[in-house]
Amino acid sequence: MPPIPVSKLAPASLPAMPAVPGVRLGAAEAAIRYKGRVDVVMAEMPPGTTVAGVLTRTKCPSAPVDWCRAALKGGKARAVVVNAGNANAFTGKLGADAARRTAEAAAKALGCKAREVFLASTGVIGEPLPDEKIRAALPALRARLSPAPWADAARGIMTTDTYPKAATRTARIGDATVTINGIIKGSGMIAPDMGTMLGFVFTDAKLPAAVLQTLLSRSTETTFNCMTVDGDTSTSDTVLLFATGAARHKRITRAADPALKDFRAKLHDILHELCQLVVKDGEGIEKLITINVSGAVSTRSAKRLGLAIANSPLVKTAIAGEDANWGRIVMAVGKAGEPADRDKLSIRIGGVQVAKKGLRVPDYDEAPVNAHMKGRDIVIDVDIGLGRGKATVWTCDLTHGYIDINGSYRT
Amino acid sequence: MPPIPVSKLAPASLPAMPAVPGVRLGAAEAAIRYKGRVDVVMAEMPPGTTVAGVLTRTKCPSAPVDWCRAALKGGKARAVVVNAGNANAFTGKLGADAARRTAEAAAKALGCKAREVFLASTGVIGEPLPDEKIRAALPALRARLSPAPWADAARGIMTTDTYPKAATRTARIGDATVTINGIIKGSGMIAPDMGTMLGFVFTDAKLPAAVLQTLLSRSTETTFNCMTVDGDTSTSDTVLLFATGAARHKRITRAADPALKDFRAKLHDILHELCQLVVKDGEGIEKLITINVSGAVSTRSAKRLGLAIANSPLVKTAIAGEDANWGRIVMAVGKAGEPADRDKLSIRIGGVQVAKKGLRVPDYDEAPVNAHMKGRDIVIDVDIGLGRGKATVWTCDLTHGYIDINGSYRT
Repeated sequence: MPPIPVSKLAPASLPAMPAVPGVRLGAAEAAIRYKGRVDVVMAEMPPGTTVAGVLTRTKCPSAPVDWCRAALKGGKARAVVVNAGNANAFTGKLGADAARRTAEAAAKALGCKAREVFLASTGVIGEPLPDEKIRAALPALRARLSPAPWADAARGIMTTDTYPKAATRTARIGDATVTINGIIKGSGMIAPDMGTMLGFVFTDAKLPAAVLQTLLSRSTETTFNCMTVDGDTSTSDTVLLFATGAARHKRITRAADPALKDFRAKLHDILHELCQLVVKDGEGIEKLITINVSGAVSTRSAKRLGLAIANSPLVKTAIAGEDANWGRIVMAVGKAGEPADRDKLSIRIGGVQVAKKGLRVPDYDEAPVNAHMKGRDIVIDVDIGLGRGKATVWTCDLTHGYIDINGSYRT
Repeated sequence: MPPIPVSKLAPASLPAMPAVPGVRLGAAEAAIRYKGRVDVVMAEMPPGTTVAGVLTRTKCPSAPVDWCRAALKGGKARAVVVNAGNANAFTGKLGADAARRTAEAAAKALGCKAREVFLASTGVIGEPLPDEKIRAALPALRARLSPAPWADAARGIMTTDTYPKAATRTARIGDATVTINGIIKGSGMIAPDMGTMLGFVFTDAKLPAAVLQTLLSRSTETTFNCMTVDGDTSTSDTVLLFATGAARHKRITRAADPALKDFRAKLHDILHELCQLVVKDGEGIEKLITINVSGAVSTRSAKRLGLAIANSPLVKTAIAGEDANWGRIVMAVGKAGEPADRDKLSIRIGGVQVAKKGLRVPDYDEAPVNAHMKGRDIVIDVDIGLGRGKATVWTCDLTHGYIDINGSYRT
């Protein structure tokens, strides 16, 4: 298969990434699966770094997910080691051993405990991880860690991604300014209801692990868990948030501390941007689709309705075909299994009212809607007409590109 | 868009359909949407005919589905009128009125009550049904009804179907032989958890409506409700079973009557065949996929696990690409939200053991599995390893053809 072209919705370039005080990172070529590209990434954090994480809720988690779930209980982190090309999933005891050996090797190189090393792997499922290749790469990688190479790290974690993904923010906590940097990977097997894909966010804020976890979990619900490429949930999805504590600000003990107002907003912001970067690299994407659901009986219901629309192959192929086939949106609302009343349903596409209270609007003019369908950004507003529940969900269209990419991934 | 080629899995021809004593039918061209083809079908049954039905569970049902739901309460039928090209869905009071007028016109032509006329419509959603075209066609159609034209009827209900679909069986009830004929349509927007698509089954058995309903509902669970093309559930799905009572057999009052043993088996058989005919016309199909799940904690759980695999775009595209990417089956089991234990999971493809108890089998030889992937019939066996729940689910692969068909359905 020819190389996958870069997504038409890719940003022009990576943002300039400042250093995050305390974080040093780097990438190396370990030839795990891909040749001639970086495929192992390591970040080192200083003693005292706290960590929070959201992990896949799959019943078939990868070995690194199991490892992180256990390690998160300690709330402390000194490093994260990530590889691309092999997911170390469905590898049984062999995979658990490979994960443990990798963490132990990194811990030895850094002089920390293995449980302070976090792991993430993506790539093919079911093949033994050649952890010896990762372990062999670690000493040299450790020796040249630096605060700068965020772009290398963003590239080193890619699998079917067509571009590297990173974002940065600064936030005020009291009198101090802290930095938040994030890198992320993902373009297929992207589905919500869990911490999706691999994402790593670093800050120099000084926050207890429990506070970090609250902030991360809360923002995940309206960012990562509101996007979908194909409704398929990975075995490996992991988002980790590290706080080095290098910043000088007042002591924070609660997520609700008013001093965190700006940090909370900026953290949400960066997670949202990282999430958008993933959707915009959705396999085969031609159009970004934003679905705003209102009037549902609850937030949860609104999200499920939005996801039913976002995951409908018929909605997605219609949009790929630039066809304002809103009947399929009706269909998707109807099948979602959530409270809905056909005769109260209203739909806008590109801001144009298409259907109102269960009926196509009189004198419906398809011309402005058809013009909207030809763009890259498709916006669908669905009002359920029953309550006050709202949610926004993002997805991409379903195109020939998706079939090309996924019919021949392993070959 | 060029015409859609006939499915490669289409049967060579329609079976020879015998008459069902008491049933007369026919088809006409009403030019509802398609030109130059039959698009209205009518079947007339004698007084005393009983009826059972399973209808879509969508929250946005079509007007004919609403009509049938009410009419089924009477348990009696004299006719069914079906049109293709317009679903009469999301049409509000206009649509309900159009349905009522159609039923009233047919009732007038036949001399029966409107509530004894059943209706079904498929096609575009959200456009007013030109019921005057249907009503105008009814008198001439009524005048030439006959016991023979099953093929015309099977053709007249098609929308994106690439071939007409019909099946027939005979069954013994006591000393009598009864006939069971069925016609069906469907190829996209096919998902389970309801009576899927439009299907009409006729028999001359003499059975109370309650008995019919029990038999139909029971078989639907393991036939229609175990297939999926795209996970999208229609606004219009309807399966109706009519029994004219023309056959001479002993009085039956219970579905469990031992005299119904053969009839139950044959009814299940014909529903299964009709269901297979729909999956084999799945939009863009290149391969029929049969997924046998065993070892789940319950039948219901097995079915949900099977459907999670069947609806996974990544599983379906891998099969389209003839890639035995069994890691995606693991992924789909993991995301199903049903009890599963990664380390007890076993998978066979084409009868060849691929993974056992959470691990690829030692010395896995992909050659015979790759050979199986090149065929038209793909069989996947998944053992969850937890209990005794079993289910079989059918689907098709996800190909460029699906995108072609659904990116330009309305244009």
